[in-house]
Amino acid sequence: MSQQPGWFTEAHQASGSSIGFRTEQLLHSEKSAFQTIDIYQTTDWGKLMVIDGCIMLTARDNFFYHEMMTHPALFTHACAKQVVIIGGGDCGTLREVLRHDEVEHVVQVEIDERVTRLAEQYFPELCESNGDPRAELLFEDGIKYLAAVPAESIDLVIVDSTDPVGPAAGLFNTAFYASCFKALRHGGLLVQQSESPLVHLELIKSMRAAMHAAGFSARRTLPFPQPCYPTGWWSCTMARKGGELHDFRERGALSKKFHTHYYNAEIHKAALAQPEFMREALVE
Amino acid sequence: MSQQPGWFTEAHQASGSSIGFRTEQLLHSEKSAFQTIDIYQTTDWGKLMVIDGCIMLTARDNFFYHEMMTHPALFTHACAKQVVIIGGGDCGTLREVLRHDEVEHVVQVEIDERVTRLAEQYFPELCESNGDPRAELLFEDGIKYLAAVPAESIDLVIVDSTDPVGPAAGLFNTAFYASCFKALRHGGLLVQQSESPLVHLELIKSMRAAMHAAGFSARRTLPFPQPCYPTGWWSCTMARKGGELHDFRERGALSKKFHTHYYNAEIHKAALAQPEFMREALVE
Repeated sequence: MSQQPGWFTEAHQASGSSIGFRTEQLLHSEKSAFQTIDIYQTTDWGKLMVIDGCIMLTARDNFFYHEMMTHPALFTHACAKQVVIIGGGDCGTLREVLRHDEVEHVVQVEIDERVTRLAEQYFPELCESNGDPRAELLFEDGIKYLAAVPAESIDLVIVDSTDPVGPAAGLFNTAFYASCFKALRHGGLLVQQSESPLVHLELIKSMRAAMHAAGFSARRTLPFPQPCYPTGWWSCTMARKGGELHDFRERGALSKKFHTHYYNAEIHKAALAQPEFMREALVE
Repeated sequence: MSQQPGWFTEAHQASGSSIGFRTEQLLHSEKSAFQTIDIYQTTDWGKLMVIDGCIMLTARDNFFYHEMMTHPALFTHACAKQVVIIGGGDCGTLREVLRHDEVEHVVQVEIDERVTRLAEQYFPELCESNGDPRAELLFEDGIKYLAAVPAESIDLVIVDSTDPVGPAAGLFNTAFYASCFKALRHGGLLVQQSESPLVHLELIKSMRAAMHAAGFSARRTLPFPQPCYPTGWWSCTMARKGGELHDFRERGALSKKFHTHYYNAEIHKAALAQPEFMREALVE
């Protein structure tokens, strides 16, 4: 599917559907050591980042994803002090994690430094916490990093990656989840972006089976709107090392000291509700 | 934006975004007395209906919309016996309403008979309840119909229309809501499709203000995923003549005797949760 003039359109072959944004200008295009990164100015969605032809984020709608990849996990954990982000090169996830005062140290392990450098230039609002003394930005392979981390040293691992192909393929299997499990303290959490519940339900099932095989005692998939991703509907899947996942620190969420656009205590509860077809498919 | 070969794409000018589906074949195209109606066979979404260039529904994802336009209202009303559907020509809303045993009579008032005839031909699964003795299909102007209905004779009005332009423009103002209010019995409900919470928030605010002006005592906007509509995220807005809208017949929803794909009691509660930016914008 070639591009119409004035629009960037991602045709998602696996689902036979496409999403596009009207553009004003291609601001930047480069081949990094890992991938092709394009930045567009759109007419209505602010700046748009595209990696290998796949829409990564727009300035207007990334709040759904970044808030839902962080606050449900951080308000589920009793007190997450040590956090690791795998991927997350645009730094929006890092910014949301650092809104939590209980967090003492966050390591972001992004394989492609160019994603972060371009985010700093074109999405400065996402990078505004990069200088926080609690933040450490590494540019290396997240799979190797987690495999080498001391056992039981981490409270929360957030896997904020691209789709499960190419460099991210190794983030969706039992070997990787076993590294996460070993790295986490008892009660620790893993949360990973898990694609569209409508068209990637088999992937979600296999992720949850692999998390179970790696030793995680509970798993939950939380759907949320995400207009720029295929079907406009996305999810994250949480897994816990010891303990359950049906509850969260509701009082903490109700009295949070920072502003959000999508997330709040009600929305957290709502995201734990399973649509009928997911409830039927994800019986464990 | 012209069409790529093999795809039908709707460019939504107001939001600068587009959604498309890969097609195999244009099955039918006609100009009715009111609009142009096209039916495509897609590769992954079953049949697709397009009216005046706007995607109306696909066979694969219409369940979100049809279930959320009906079951929350029917499980909120104590016992809706008399139901009117304005629009709804594809008959999917009618089918869902008729799943409720308490419903004694449903009138569907669609202005364009051709929409229903084409739905019968290309979406027979949506029309499977058209022969139900409780169903009455009229092909006339819904605004005039409701203005002439005896006062306090209806329990639930469902406005399942196209966008608020063209023939549907008159369904989004105080005069129309005043007709609905008059037609409804005390405790009766109006539910109307209310576009994308992300890009049509001003419309939602003006709808709710007009519903308030028409006398409705409570209003709620329920978001839900809808991949084929702009942003992939849609909503319905409910209004009540007397009484509140924070509660529903949860026990009824838990023990419902029919199958759904999206809706269940948990999802009903979840749809009542307001994302933070909606909560801020819709304070009344």
